[in-house]
Amino acid sequence: MRLLVQKYGGTSVANLECMQRVREKVLKVLDRGYKVVVVLSAMSGETNRLIDMARKWSKRPDPCEMDVLLATGEQASVSLFTMLLKDCGVKARSFLGFQVPIQTDKSFGKARILDIDKEKIKDILYKYDVVVVAGFQGCDCEQRITTLGRGGSDTSAVAIAAALGAEVCEIYTDVDGVYTTDPNICPQARKIKKIAYEEMLEMASMGAKVLQIRSVEFAKKYNVPVHVRSTFSDEPGTLVVQEDKSMESAMVSGVAYDKDQARITLVDVYDEPGVAARIFEPISRSNIVVDMIVQNPSRGGKTDMTFTVPRGNTEETLNILQKVKDEIGASAILHDEDVAKVSVIGVGMRNHSGVAAIAFSALKNENINIMIISTSEIKISCLIEEKYTELAVRTLHEAFGLDHETPGIKA
Amino acid sequence: MRLLVQKYGGTSVANLECMQRVREKVLKVLDRGYKVVVVLSAMSGETNRLIDMARKWSKRPDPCEMDVLLATGEQASVSLFTMLLKDCGVKARSFLGFQVPIQTDKSFGKARILDIDKEKIKDILYKYDVVVVAGFQGCDCEQRITTLGRGGSDTSAVAIAAALGAEVCEIYTDVDGVYTTDPNICPQARKIKKIAYEEMLEMASMGAKVLQIRSVEFAKKYNVPVHVRSTFSDEPGTLVVQEDKSMESAMVSGVAYDKDQARITLVDVYDEPGVAARIFEPISRSNIVVDMIVQNPSRGGKTDMTFTVPRGNTEETLNILQKVKDEIGASAILHDEDVAKVSVIGVGMRNHSGVAAIAFSALKNENINIMIISTSEIKISCLIEEKYTELAVRTLHEAFGLDHETPGIKA
Repeated sequence: MRLLVQKYGGTSVANLECMQRVREKVLKVLDRGYKVVVVLSAMSGETNRLIDMARKWSKRPDPCEMDVLLATGEQASVSLFTMLLKDCGVKARSFLGFQVPIQTDKSFGKARILDIDKEKIKDILYKYDVVVVAGFQGCDCEQRITTLGRGGSDTSAVAIAAALGAEVCEIYTDVDGVYTTDPNICPQARKIKKIAYEEMLEMASMGAKVLQIRSVEFAKKYNVPVHVRSTFSDEPGTLVVQEDKSMESAMVSGVAYDKDQARITLVDVYDEPGVAARIFEPISRSNIVVDMIVQNPSRGGKTDMTFTVPRGNTEETLNILQKVKDEIGASAILHDEDVAKVSVIGVGMRNHSGVAAIAFSALKNENINIMIISTSEIKISCLIEEKYTELAVRTLHEAFGLDHETPGIKA
Repeated sequence: MRLLVQKYGGTSVANLECMQRVREKVLKVLDRGYKVVVVLSAMSGETNRLIDMARKWSKRPDPCEMDVLLATGEQASVSLFTMLLKDCGVKARSFLGFQVPIQTDKSFGKARILDIDKEKIKDILYKYDVVVVAGFQGCDCEQRITTLGRGGSDTSAVAIAAALGAEVCEIYTDVDGVYTTDPNICPQARKIKKIAYEEMLEMASMGAKVLQIRSVEFAKKYNVPVHVRSTFSDEPGTLVVQEDKSMESAMVSGVAYDKDQARITLVDVYDEPGVAARIFEPISRSNIVVDMIVQNPSRGGKTDMTFTVPRGNTEETLNILQKVKDEIGASAILHDEDVAKVSVIGVGMRNHSGVAAIAFSALKNENINIMIISTSEIKISCLIEEKYTELAVRTLHEAFGLDHETPGIKA
């Protein structure tokens, strides 16, 4: 049995016309002799409508019941779409999360998939040509409904593709692939034909919202080729796959940025074991994600500690730090919300030297000051003043030859 | 454990304010030391919205997928209402049909309840004080979602009350009980304090839409007292219970009418065995419900056969009859859609004679001609010209003393 998994996002199933377009796509694949698992999101706007409703009902809606409510969005999508398929004689049926079942943990609102009963889906695929699965939802061990968090349908699709050993998992969306950077601020941005899972993870965590991060982790873990492409064209999009030789020729695959950053500096904290723990433990207990961290060299037993948090958490972080301020010996707590992070990403960095030097000198040429630098094996990130974000992205994009079809600069 | 089952209809949970009112009612019962199973319908208008949507998607929406879609209505109600309960600290959780589970057959769109896992609900009731169950929905043996048909939430509630042996099943709605007749056409109509299951069945089948017929059958079978009352007041409503001595004092408990009637007459059919079967078998195969049937005395081996069908089925019935017309020797097929059925109902008829005579003479006094008469043990129905419906109802209501608190006429 040749099998394809296709996931269609909210804008792809927004109304009857959109769903009819999706049906055409599915029928074409059937003609090619495939069986198809179609994973659907809620119709665009529906999840927000339900969230707004819950917030009207309750200031802090119960998370378990919220998932019961949100799951109705995908439930409506799969039933309506299956009606369309059956209308033209396709052997199809819908499946909700609990029916597959997609077993998850009990983290309502951001559940993780634990297991998918692949034998059951395989049995079903003998009887039906198209199985339409509600994305975003699963159920815990007590059959309570859970949801996987924003963009969770991507993860549903990849997890099903992994369970079934599908040839590829196609993610249909309203953009035609992954770009070297945001085309809205850099017109030279180009569509990437092939990108490594690791690169995609870095791009996604930088705010490239094409795929949910967890879906990429899943795809990487189970080596599922993911094809990100547009519902509104037949052009191939971006293939997200395991790193291969061809990817190494380019130093850098993309430039990302993130404006949701606030910088916080603790001045003159004791430079002794345990201080970092006393700072970051209470922050982490409040579920605040700390991103970049730098510690200056010690001056007379004291040092400065600087880090970034999402802007929405600035105030809460400052409140937490006030409580430990004396304990850690800080003379002042500074904060700055007019900052942004720009990053260059590429598995090619592993084999090319001088990438950092190129990035720093490109920024220097535009007189952009770098406040914090953090690096990983395949990424270099710089915290800069927010107002330079667009300029920095364009500058880096050009410096690494991404403006041209074949990235130019090689080490 | 003292246990109450309460069902709230669509108008009772139509919006936030309505749901808050329902919460008050539930909290009061908790204060009295009860645990409560609350069964909810979809918010009023929601089921129609979903049906309209499906009809836009497909001329004949697949019935299985239709049920998946419709079930979202109650799913939204129970999650939102449970949020409200949890907001004020009540130990509550929602249950969907498949979670209870409410096992049904596979008649999608009009499924019948086969079984309810009462041990599971009882276990749950040890942990929670309020269990909020989605009405109208169940699941078949393969865990596919089914729905119970219009008004199905009543049946859900009664079935759960029967399974749990609840003291009473309260059905909250936008009317304050069952009336002796339709107050819109007879201002003297009075609320009935207590009515027998059989009477309620006859009233319901006559178009008194307070309770779904199947829920009354269920209540009768398992002897569940049903209290029909208003969400918008604290006044007691109508108790639907097993027939008792007190009910026999009145000849008649109520007057009902049904304008959804069309009369069809086959003229001069052969008066011989098998003719009735040849007429009614093909009609029944088309799922058309034949109501009143009369056959005139034979004249020279020929007779007239007259019966009624719902008006929406008139044309289809005529088409079916055309095919058997020659076979049964009919010289003509007549039909008349300007007819209505009025009925007097009461278990008291079993012990009172002369009920029919009173009804016929009351109609005669108003010069209302009776076209067909049909009787059962507790009901007398007359088919009359539609334009006399309201007059006939008022006349019969008065003739049987229903205008007054204590029905007056006794045999």
